[in-house]
Amino acid sequence: MKYDVIGLGNAIVDVISQADDAFIAELALSKGGMRLIDARQAHDLYSRMASGLESSGGSVANSCAGVASLGGRAAYVGRVAQDQLGEVFAHDITASGVTFLSSAADASGPPTARCLVLVTPDAQRTMNTYLGACVELCPDDIDPAAFADAKITYLEGYLWDQPLAQAAMRKAAQAARGAGRKVALSLSDAFCVDRHRASFYELIDEHIDVLFANEAELLALTECEHFDQAVEAVRGRAEWVAVTRGALGSVVITPARTIHVPASPVAKVVDTTGAGDLYAAGFLFGYTRDGSPEECARLGALAAAEIISHFGARPEVKLSTLL
Amino acid sequence: MKYDVIGLGNAIVDVISQADDAFIAELALSKGGMRLIDARQAHDLYSRMASGLESSGGSVANSCAGVASLGGRAAYVGRVAQDQLGEVFAHDITASGVTFLSSAADASGPPTARCLVLVTPDAQRTMNTYLGACVELCPDDIDPAAFADAKITYLEGYLWDQPLAQAAMRKAAQAARGAGRKVALSLSDAFCVDRHRASFYELIDEHIDVLFANEAELLALTECEHFDQAVEAVRGRAEWVAVTRGALGSVVITPARTIHVPASPVAKVVDTTGAGDLYAAGFLFGYTRDGSPEECARLGALAAAEIISHFGARPEVKLSTLL
Repeated sequence: MKYDVIGLGNAIVDVISQADDAFIAELALSKGGMRLIDARQAHDLYSRMASGLESSGGSVANSCAGVASLGGRAAYVGRVAQDQLGEVFAHDITASGVTFLSSAADASGPPTARCLVLVTPDAQRTMNTYLGACVELCPDDIDPAAFADAKITYLEGYLWDQPLAQAAMRKAAQAARGAGRKVALSLSDAFCVDRHRASFYELIDEHIDVLFANEAELLALTECEHFDQAVEAVRGRAEWVAVTRGALGSVVITPARTIHVPASPVAKVVDTTGAGDLYAAGFLFGYTRDGSPEECARLGALAAAEIISHFGARPEVKLSTLL
Repeated sequence: MKYDVIGLGNAIVDVISQADDAFIAELALSKGGMRLIDARQAHDLYSRMASGLESSGGSVANSCAGVASLGGRAAYVGRVAQDQLGEVFAHDITASGVTFLSSAADASGPPTARCLVLVTPDAQRTMNTYLGACVELCPDDIDPAAFADAKITYLEGYLWDQPLAQAAMRKAAQAARGAGRKVALSLSDAFCVDRHRASFYELIDEHIDVLFANEAELLALTECEHFDQAVEAVRGRAEWVAVTRGALGSVVITPARTIHVPASPVAKVVDTTGAGDLYAAGFLFGYTRDGSPEECARLGALAAAEIISHFGARPEVKLSTLL
């Protein structure tokens, strides 16, 4: 097989700046969450934000960069435009060792997506995403042969908001499953899960072997009030369900077992952007090497610890050196 | 007066990535230096570089952002194009509290400048600058009233490579001096100094009150072999000459005295990009508050220490909180 992991997601450049809690409150943002904004809102918010750092992002793209950084063979599909940020995205993911399978859309359409990330002093990130060129992701962007040629396909839940992207995800999952491969999904965002609970369950039941979620997303999916109830509600819906719990570590739920794995120690948490994405990277890397749930979760914790120690959601050191 | 400091320089977005010494050697680059590259070289080098972080840069622009971060009133003049990187530059300098006095050139001309910065494990930076829209800086970009309205004008030596920019620098200096204001110059780069020694001396003798240089630039200017000789050779050419010496701190040379000020302690030096720029920021901030040479150099050391502790040449914390 050509790839260990192939990812499908929103190709985004992050614009990261520091903000205080008052600014988050003033804008009535939900701290720690992600909301979609249009071009005008992006312009207005950007004009009020502090000086920034730009770094390639996109949840599943970050995971693919992490897989490559760990030494895995990764490919990625996602739409950028022919503009400077599109060039940055394409450069960074390629330079990370990921095979970027999409070509840039011509510059007459919407520009490359950006996510305005506000990092508060508690290291939490609040994300405001202008999807730009990503909204045009459609089934034609999916080459079934590529998805048949990867051990596991990793789908980004955020995509589920766009009907054409849903069709693209289904096409990718079918190509993978049809070739006997595995498929993983990130729930991405509690609000997104809430908007599409029924169809998410349908997708999971039909196609998903490995499901990634954080606590809020798991509660949103299962409509449970307590974590322990949610664990039982989701058990068996996928082969493995990996749930990240921040400083509490993570839990892997298999049909028969619930495995708790602690977080890896971090000297100073600077910016939690990408923590879940890099957890998935480590986990999937382990999965493609036939790791046990414990081993996969431990690799996830290791990769997540690196990413939260600095600004930006792409590794600053080669993760394979940490193994 | 409206401003404490008004800067004139190349408006550049930095693309920062990590590189090893072998990569620097393979490309036959001069480690720690700056070279100008054309669009094709920029494309080729970028395609070989690791995944990057984008951060607004430009030597004097960094200094102006530093002055504002210290609580000073700063303005900046430099050319960007109407493109995404131009938007990033304009946003960042404005968000830093600096009044950006230039409007973006239309997108039919060269794009916004970028500097491909390779940071080696020893924290040194090797810079490859594609000047893009900056090459079109000309005397028409200078509004004499703005330069007459600032306590000190700060000119970037890098500009001296372009004849039209030289004329713009002279126009700015004349406007400032004509109104009884001060003018500072950064020598910017030893090779640039070497290319233009005679005309740099002419500019200094005619217009410059405060001269900034690092050791290499001072040796290049004075054609001395030893630092102590260079100190005597430059003494009195400007009211004050401030020379940065990395970990050795800095030296301020006045007509009557030579003042040594140590570097401020840093836990871990990550990236020396912007060290000289932020030294100048602290120094100029002190100068506009009638600080002694010692006080100015100490403020410079403080600002430089913050910038070398992280990637990027713009402060991550409000520098006034460090005072």
